[in-house]
Amino acid sequence: MAQIVTIGEVLLRLSTPGFSRFEQARSFDVTYAGGEANVASALAYWGHSTAHVTRFPDSPVGRAAAQYLRFHGVDISHIQFGGPRMAVYYLETGAALRGSQIVYDRAGSSFATAEPQSYDWDEILKGATWFHWAGITPALSQEAADACLQGIQAARKKGITVSGDIFYRSNLWKYGKTPGDVIPELTAGTDIVIANQINVKEIFGIECTDFPDACVKLQKAFPQVSRVVDTQRTSLSASHNLLKAFLWNGEKMLETADVDINPIVDRVGGGDAFIAGLIHGLLTFDDEQKALEFGVAASAMKHTIEGDALVSTEAEVEAIRQGETSGRIKR
Amino acid sequence: MAQIVTIGEVLLRLSTPGFSRFEQARSFDVTYAGGEANVASALAYWGHSTAHVTRFPDSPVGRAAAQYLRFHGVDISHIQFGGPRMAVYYLETGAALRGSQIVYDRAGSSFATAEPQSYDWDEILKGATWFHWAGITPALSQEAADACLQGIQAARKKGITVSGDIFYRSNLWKYGKTPGDVIPELTAGTDIVIANQINVKEIFGIECTDFPDACVKLQKAFPQVSRVVDTQRTSLSASHNLLKAFLWNGEKMLETADVDINPIVDRVGGGDAFIAGLIHGLLTFDDEQKALEFGVAASAMKHTIEGDALVSTEAEVEAIRQGETSGRIKR
Amino acid sequence: MAQIVTIGEVLLRLSTPGFSRFEQARSFDVTYAGGEANVASALAYWGHSTAHVTRFPDSPVGRAAAQYLRFHGVDISHIQFGGPRMAVYYLETGAALRGSQIVYDRAGSSFATAEPQSYDWDEILKGATWFHWAGITPALSQEAADACLQGIQAARKKGITVSGDIFYRSNLWKYGKTPGDVIPELTAGTDIVIANQINVKEIFGIECTDFPDACVKLQKAFPQVSRVVDTQRTSLSASHNLLKAFLWNGEKMLETADVDINPIVDRVGGGDAFIAGLIHGLLTFDDEQKALEFGVAASAMKHTIEGDALVSTEAEVEAIRQGETSGRIKR
Amino acid sequence: MAQIVTIGEVLLRLSTPGFSRFEQARSFDVTYAGGEANVASALAYWGHSTAHVTRFPDSPVGRAAAQYLRFHGVDISHIQFGGPRMAVYYLETGAALRGSQIVYDRAGSSFATAEPQSYDWDEILKGATWFHWAGITPALSQEAADACLQGIQAARKKGITVSGDIFYRSNLWKYGKTPGDVIPELTAGTDIVIANQINVKEIFGIECTDFPDACVKLQKAFPQVSRVVDTQRTSLSASHNLLKAFLWNGEKMLETADVDINPIVDRVGGGDAFIAGLIHGLLTFDDEQKALEFGVAASAMKHTIEGDALVSTEAEVEAIRQGETSGRIKR
Amino acid sequence: MAQIVTIGEVLLRLSTPGFSRFEQARSFDVTYAGGEANVASALAYWGHSTAHVTRFPDSPVGRAAAQYLRFHGVDISHIQFGGPRMAVYYLETGAALRGSQIVYDRAGSSFATAEPQSYDWDEILKGATWFHWAGITPALSQEAADACLQGIQAARKKGITVSGDIFYRSNLWKYGKTPGDVIPELTAGTDIVIANQINVKEIFGIECTDFPDACVKLQKAFPQVSRVVDTQRTSLSASHNLLKAFLWNGEKMLETADVDINPIVDRVGGGDAFIAGLIHGLLTFDDEQKALEFGVAASAMKHTIEGDALVSTEAEVEAIRQGETSGRIKR
Amino acid sequence: MAQIVTIGEVLLRLSTPGFSRFEQARSFDVTYAGGEANVASALAYWGHSTAHVTRFPDSPVGRAAAQYLRFHGVDISHIQFGGPRMAVYYLETGAALRGSQIVYDRAGSSFATAEPQSYDWDEILKGATWFHWAGITPALSQEAADACLQGIQAARKKGITVSGDIFYRSNLWKYGKTPGDVIPELTAGTDIVIANQINVKEIFGIECTDFPDACVKLQKAFPQVSRVVDTQRTSLSASHNLLKAFLWNGEKMLETADVDINPIVDRVGGGDAFIAGLIHGLLTFDDEQKALEFGVAASAMKHTIEGDALVSTEAEVEAIRQGETSGRIKR
Repeated sequence: MAQIVTIGEVLLRLSTPGFSRFEQARSFDVTYAGGEANVASALAYWGHSTAHVTRFPDSPVGRAAAQYLRFHGVDISHIQFGGPRMAVYYLETGAALRGSQIVYDRAGSSFATAEPQSYDWDEILKGATWFHWAGITPALSQEAADACLQGIQAARKKGITVSGDIFYRSNLWKYGKTPGDVIPELTAGTDIVIANQINVKEIFGIECTDFPDACVKLQKAFPQVSRVVDTQRTSLSASHNLLKAFLWNGEKMLETADVDINPIVDRVGGGDAFIAGLIHGLLTFDDEQKALEFGVAASAMKHTIEGDALVSTEAEVEAIRQGETSGRIKR
Repeated sequence: MAQIVTIGEVLLRLSTPGFSRFEQARSFDVTYAGGEANVASALAYWGHSTAHVTRFPDSPVGRAAAQYLRFHGVDISHIQFGGPRMAVYYLETGAALRGSQIVYDRAGSSFATAEPQSYDWDEILKGATWFHWAGITPALSQEAADACLQGIQAARKKGITVSGDIFYRSNLWKYGKTPGDVIPELTAGTDIVIANQINVKEIFGIECTDFPDACVKLQKAFPQVSRVVDTQRTSLSASHNLLKAFLWNGEKMLETADVDINPIVDRVGGGDAFIAGLIHGLLTFDDEQKALEFGVAASAMKHTIEGDALVSTEAEVEAIRQGETSGRIKR
Repeated sequence: MAQIVTIGEVLLRLSTPGFSRFEQARSFDVTYAGGEANVASALAYWGHSTAHVTRFPDSPVGRAAAQYLRFHGVDISHIQFGGPRMAVYYLETGAALRGSQIVYDRAGSSFATAEPQSYDWDEILKGATWFHWAGITPALSQEAADACLQGIQAARKKGITVSGDIFYRSNLWKYGKTPGDVIPELTAGTDIVIANQINVKEIFGIECTDFPDACVKLQKAFPQVSRVVDTQRTSLSASHNLLKAFLWNGEKMLETADVDINPIVDRVGGGDAFIAGLIHGLLTFDDEQKALEFGVAASAMKHTIEGDALVSTEAEVEAIRQGETSGRIKR
Repeated sequence: MAQIVTIGEVLLRLSTPGFSRFEQARSFDVTYAGGEANVASALAYWGHSTAHVTRFPDSPVGRAAAQYLRFHGVDISHIQFGGPRMAVYYLETGAALRGSQIVYDRAGSSFATAEPQSYDWDEILKGATWFHWAGITPALSQEAADACLQGIQAARKKGITVSGDIFYRSNLWKYGKTPGDVIPELTAGTDIVIANQINVKEIFGIECTDFPDACVKLQKAFPQVSRVVDTQRTSLSASHNLLKAFLWNGEKMLETADVDINPIVDRVGGGDAFIAGLIHGLLTFDDEQKALEFGVAASAMKHTIEGDALVSTEAEVEAIRQGETSGRIKR
Repeated sequence: MAQIVTIGEVLLRLSTPGFSRFEQARSFDVTYAGGEANVASALAYWGHSTAHVTRFPDSPVGRAAAQYLRFHGVDISHIQFGGPRMAVYYLETGAALRGSQIVYDRAGSSFATAEPQSYDWDEILKGATWFHWAGITPALSQEAADACLQGIQAARKKGITVSGDIFYRSNLWKYGKTPGDVIPELTAGTDIVIANQINVKEIFGIECTDFPDACVKLQKAFPQVSRVVDTQRTSLSASHNLLKAFLWNGEKMLETADVDINPIVDRVGGGDAFIAGLIHGLLTFDDEQKALEFGVAASAMKHTIEGDALVSTEAEVEAIRQGETSGRIKR
Repeated sequence: MAQIVTIGEVLLRLSTPGFSRFEQARSFDVTYAGGEANVASALAYWGHSTAHVTRFPDSPVGRAAAQYLRFHGVDISHIQFGGPRMAVYYLETGAALRGSQIVYDRAGSSFATAEPQSYDWDEILKGATWFHWAGITPALSQEAADACLQGIQAARKKGITVSGDIFYRSNLWKYGKTPGDVIPELTAGTDIVIANQINVKEIFGIECTDFPDACVKLQKAFPQVSRVVDTQRTSLSASHNLLKAFLWNGEKMLETADVDINPIVDRVGGGDAFIAGLIHGLLTFDDEQKALEFGVAASAMKHTIEGDALVSTEAEVEAIRQGETSGRIKR
């Protein structure tokens, strides 16, 4: 009975130690992560009861992955075990003018091949108030797309708030469908959409002049959508970024100041931390601006932490939101 | 222009550090290895020019794998780059009464999906005198089985000696064929077969009372086969094994004494080291008994070395063959 | 609502890497462990729902400790946060003729100073069928002794089976009480006692000629006690031990064969693994002999695993119980 | 017979590797450090004979701590062994906008509980010309406060220069006294005081408008005080600080330029390095401005070095003092 | 039959981990590197066939060094084995205002003592189109100087392009000769000279007002020289440098923009990467400006990579050359 | 003013981590060690004041070496700084039937090239009662041989007990002298000789039938010699040895039982630990048999400890001497 439920693939993350290149690495650092699970982890650290829905192979590696989520406080009782393999991603962390590199190896994963009917949404969503999905899931396979849609529809029926990270990579989508075939139906059941202007155009075919225009037109096309959110990253180098965010609430465009992050320890998962922070803010504060700022602060915090997961207390993120970024020692 | 050519899948090996379990590992040690490539590596350390034939994904991880073979001295100029993914295996090293565990994730690898016609056997085998294959390859896919057969036939035509490690795991062979469908034709072109009594029965359907009987009957069925070889491991614990070997040369059964290995540092690749040692012995000594002993010594040495590859000089192995197993310091 | 509830101090375990001595160590390996929590962890791996009761400081280190237990699958919802400090133990792992060394620094820990009334036993034991305590707890402080007694009495009232590891170290017990002052009352409410002949004499002042005699007399003095259990370790060296166990069931003395463990990876927590195995056996099998053997197998398995916790499946332990100790690779 | 004698608690420093958080750490880096001992270590690297006075538990961990100081060149012959426990501090190193975190666990340490009469000041101060203490010591316990006072008074009698780092943390001082009860008497015997305006007000109740005003009034209240010194840190982020210092010599206020430190490797011990540099400067140069600059240079250098201790030659610090901060390779 | 041949000493590089100082290090990171071999390694990554000429001791350490070059793709068939010892250099990596430190221990190395006649230049240069040497080699010993000269002369005869890094350290040159005695003869056979104004003056005794003047006069003195190249580093701190380069082609002075590198991961080998990039550019592009920029980009890339060797693809360097220095993640 | 003075080269020890081979190692573990310094270190742990005499290069690496000895408690005030280089040895640790390998690189070290007159023996031996040397020193260079002789003669004059480890490796002695030229004169001034029968024959040309015969004849030739000592190692494998010792006191041959060591953690320095134990025993006990046993126990303990140095208390060694080799945990 978790309050917030997320669905998505969780991958074994294999990262080269320090700044070493793939060719140089004689060991890989190991964590287990995925965009939606990262959202669940961060929210668990802030006191929310969260559950993640996925499937792992029934192997010691699959069990290790599940334990890793449990470590962060995520309820793993709805995770299935079975199927062919663990999805993997390889990460090499860049510095200065050398960007990080990610190599995915996720085809045919246990999650991507899980039968849609294997999810008991009634049971999974019992007691939930929030459901989160992302555009990676429908890109993996028909099965995953169907599961995602069924989750959204079940949530819709129960009056659960739905958020969706409408984000896509063109090098996924190899099972015969395009984003335009699948994502609109998912979006139709979604309250809060994370998307940028390009997504709106490329996925929905909606021509738009700028982000506000995209928001207005997206809402018009999908009346269920109440808010459209986006982040903007200025990448000065692999080690130095600025970060800000925008939220369209149907009436006006909210915007945060830039946060300066230098040096970046690990930027993977920064977007997921933003979403977690935003969800937390919307659930906790009666102030959308504050919620948006909390998302940016959470994302900034994530950039200083190794691994995909935002291991951080609410108080720490709130302090950053309030501008305490001087990095003084806490004793 | 390598003297000894091997074909087979090379996997990224991810092993937990020390004796930690998969659930405990926060890093994996990284090497790249595969049974046939291990044979090529060991032989390269002993001065043979060797080349390995396989396919890696055209990614930094695939390039790292190729570099790793080159590090051991194996010619990588016949390695293809392309296809979907790197094969992976996960290893947890046991101790005492806890055995090691291996989890394979090799389905759909770049090697398994390489087109048979992509191998230019004329070019690959130019100047070669020995070709080695193993029963894993035809188990992976029809493409790999075909490539293996074409390699054997090309070698046969050129009068190259062919050795085959007739070994199989029942949990492979998922593409619709059985060992009995495929391996006999490969064996027909093979001079030296590594196999045990059970393989002979299960693969070829040859009923046999003991290993000598199996050898005689196998040779009868496959006239090209001149020698049948097998090793015998007594596993007292994960840390303490005894090892010996048998060779049937068509006339009599040669046999070595047991070598005592305690403690075992890493037993993966021990069988490949035996084959490499045997090939080296047959190519170098005019004495089959000595060759067989060199194989066992090489395998014993491998058990004391981390990783799949036998990183060792010929002199070191020869000293063990001659019974210098006291482990005194060399200065 | 956990089935099995344990109470006890959990310490930060700081161990020198490999076999290095305290003076040599420039890093310590970190886990969090305690005898009773180790029992809960092992049982969680075998599918039991377990909860551990303790108190940690309300600091990042205390939170890390709680997360560590959650990682193993233990319910941490009854853990309190507050009090002065995290208990610590320092471990140096020995080899051959050099024994391991442990230095405790646990005085004044958050658990030792937790008020007895802070535990809501009704809530904690809701749905439980087993309660486990150990003799370390009443040795720490009056508060801990009281909490332990109240837990036992609450369990008694609810008809929950109680097991107690009657084990003591003379260098604890610094708050003015002796084991003889406190442990008898705890034992009076306990069904299954883990103790040896010397404990029986020194704690209860019961003169006894041998272990069976001690069992008979202990049961006479404490009618609630239905079983008395003990393990026997033959320490050939720090790296090589033999292990067996005895169980007196009120009628006869059951006994297992010796299990040979060589080399030992980490023997700390071996006794706790035995207790976990015994509890699992008694809860699962209708066969006390099998349960006792499962305990010994679990303990032997633990000796091959780094850290206090037995990270192992039921199937792995059962295989050892059935004599599969050859340590062959599992693929 | 050391020239410079320091007194104070030395703690086991347990720091998470790299930038990992407490929850993530599976190992801690180990050093042994304390503010006053850090002063002694730095001075020893510059050729001064220094001795540190403290007490460690008589355990392998306590002995390791003493060896660690000896490694840096500090005379450990006046260190006592005994008492209950090693003080510990846990450190998590921050980056960018995430500050470092320190968790102390020092209550009831062997030093805090050492009897004042256990120090033989006549023997300890034989041949000494400088004695250094800090405000942490009287904050720990009555025993430590008394020992500190007796040391100062013994130094006073022998005409030894006394420096005191009047610095306090409100979360210490738990034994019933306040800084205002204890520190004035210690200050009365001190020649050189390290303090800022806030300390002067909060400890001595001296109202002051700015730092110069504080210096004048402090000297008036404590005629033995000849110099008052302070550093000023501008914290742009956890990774980027500016550092400068001020010295009031009774006549005028000396001031250094800011030194820019980016990135910071480890800022803990930066204040101690400043004090060591200042003492070295005052003992070595006939130029207070140069001495103050040497202090700032030493502190800046410390920020680039892992651990509390300033492991650096005099020439390296002097080069920084002279403005060589370009960081070119030295061959 | 390599296209590009380099000669020079290869040293075992022992570097302290992270930013630790020599005194702190309890392990050293290990690579094998030398200026000219670094050039060969980088060029091999870009698809050139390269061979390095040197001598290693006939020991496991010497063999490890050779394997390390082979790992990078360098042909090691012309490496000799023999002589007294492996050259070593110790590296401590600085940060912020603390510069890195290098301690050399190369006297009497196997390379420095190799007999000039042991090199079969006819065989070595078979098929080559480029030969590269550096001023370190003639500084080591008469034998090395002679070998270098013979290599240049053999290349000259075969019409092979020769490049020379006229760079020297005054603390080498201990065998009785000065740079002025030896380097002019080497330069006389060289087409492309890497040198700065100070080198020109100190080595050749040519007075010059600025770098262009130095180039003109050097060409006048050495008519074979067609290009003179130099880099210019602005060292803001050990962690932050700017880098640019100049090329005099006999007619005009080409110049690149500054590249900003922050933070620097490892700047050793940065100069060698520049030379490799320049050679690649001159061999590949029909555009000297682009070649010079490729050199600077290669050098900048090297600063972000651990170890002396530039482990990087041509595409990565080319992207930097085209100004893609934002460090965005590549997926 | 140290009680026990030792002279000899100290080398940087570079060992591959775990059981990895030189070719595999990407880092080396670092300690600093030498036979005679190892004796001084062990004795310092047992409360003796010891000083070591040697010379290190005046570099950060040389200073690190000195600090390392100081860490163990050895007085480093008589160590000279200067000369060309640090001696190095490379160690690969074997296991089972693979022996460890050592590669020395010590020619031309700062110690080997130190001028004999640079040692102020009057100052060095002030207050000493024991002087220890080994046969490695005179093998290095004429300078080292002379220094050793002068030290022995100075000790002789002051009535200091002299012990000498007459041990030699034929691959040293490259400066024109043979052991027979130099060692007899050193032995003439020595009280206690560590030597075996082969040394006696090869160095002194004394034909002898067995060890007792060698002892008698050696004493006859060198009347100052009062005791001859030897150890005997049975090497069952690199991981399992038996160890015992013999002492001829001029009247009879004392002998210890074998101590069984399995597994060996690090056997380098085992002989030095024996000598340290013997010296401690002779200085402390009034019982030669006990002293000899203490030597064997110290050596056995050393085999369980990483590094050359015996980091161990007197009580630990004494317990082994008394037969406590069961390796039980000490709490």
